[in-house]
Amino acid sequence: MQGTEEPTSQAAAYTPTDRTVPTRSAERAAYDKELVHAILDEAYVCHLGFVRDGAPVVLPTLFGRVGETLYVHGSTGSRPLRMTGRTDPGLPVCLTVTHVDALILARSAFHHSINYRSVVVHGTAYDVTDPEEKRTALDALVDHVVAGRSRDSRPANKKELAATAVIRLDLNEVSAKLRTGGVNDEPEDLALAHWAGVVPLRKGYDAPISDPDLAPGTEVPGYLADL
Amino acid sequence: MQGTEEPTSQAAAYTPTDRTVPTRSAERAAYDKELVHAILDEAYVCHLGFVRDGAPVVLPTLFGRVGETLYVHGSTGSRPLRMTGRTDPGLPVCLTVTHVDALILARSAFHHSINYRSVVVHGTAYDVTDPEEKRTALDALVDHVVAGRSRDSRPANKKELAATAVIRLDLNEVSAKLRTGGVNDEPEDLALAHWAGVVPLRKGYDAPISDPDLAPGTEVPGYLADL
Repeated sequence: MQGTEEPTSQAAAYTPTDRTVPTRSAERAAYDKELVHAILDEAYVCHLGFVRDGAPVVLPTLFGRVGETLYVHGSTGSRPLRMTGRTDPGLPVCLTVTHVDALILARSAFHHSINYRSVVVHGTAYDVTDPEEKRTALDALVDHVVAGRSRDSRPANKKELAATAVIRLDLNEVSAKLRTGGVNDEPEDLALAHWAGVVPLRKGYDAPISDPDLAPGTEVPGYLADL
Repeated sequence: MQGTEEPTSQAAAYTPTDRTVPTRSAERAAYDKELVHAILDEAYVCHLGFVRDGAPVVLPTLFGRVGETLYVHGSTGSRPLRMTGRTDPGLPVCLTVTHVDALILARSAFHHSINYRSVVVHGTAYDVTDPEEKRTALDALVDHVVAGRSRDSRPANKKELAATAVIRLDLNEVSAKLRTGGVNDEPEDLALAHWAGVVPLRKGYDAPISDPDLAPGTEVPGYLADL
């Protein structure tokens, strides 16, 4: 934008674009970076979309975040990662993360819904070739599963690094979309005898199950208690 | 396939295609229809991918299933649904559903993973124009949120039906992919002092929260106890 000197990465919000302004329910859209980061960091998988032979492909995959960059990894033999490596200008992707928070049961079928928080990232994914960035990305991927875990595991060796492809996607064209709150029935439906309300989804963890071959004396680490 | 008289819809499994056989971890792929249906039915949202102006778009959306057909709905003003309506031969889509069941913490960073169940559907989405099919689809969408709910809510009226676009996607080119079980560390890593194991994700529901404007005497329905 002319006259704007501040780089996007230091702004508090992503700049909306044609692709990130929804055609409807625009009041549910948000561009705040902290909110976007929180939604991304809470998710274990993203859904990565790309185009192959003219048709869309959407695959679930693990990811990690370092500041304003997302990293996705996979086998060097996997399809999307092979495509970025072969494509000089990078691979156009759309990376989406969604949390379902509650079911919304309305009196009318039409107003049934869910409360959700989602983030959609548009951009171009590039192969990570710098060994240092690749290590940083792989640490971020492990720490995305459990914060701090990369320091409590054996780092990838040369063979594993060579077998792992990593792609990067910068957070530039990004939006969040949220529905919160309760039922939005039509005023004339309020007297109907159907129950209406919110059913919250409960999320949590069951007790960790230790691998049967643990080295003697290995205890469940304290950071799992923070989950 | 020549010589095969049995229609796909009555077979117990989807026929693998080039797009549904993974390039790696092929042992995780499955084509059993009952398994695919169960994974789909347990999910509240799918991630719908399509191509717009040559770039991929992945949006989370509610869906419903009637036998071997999935239905997605939205405002007649929403982008993907407008696109199918405008495109005579339909819109190529990829519809993906994923459940994360457990975190897999290995001794090596490389073998960190998650247990998951996913379904990927490739195909062409078509606008539903038949009013009867549209009603069936909308019932399926409501019943997908809570089984049996469509019978306990006010059906869509003419205005609501006109405002709702529905697209259909037949289950033909479909695969499931699953990871189950425990940690797969390298034999030489087993003696390392890092804890390794499985952290199961707990899923459930909190108590329903009644809408403050319920008609007097309206009770929480029994079918919510079955969730």
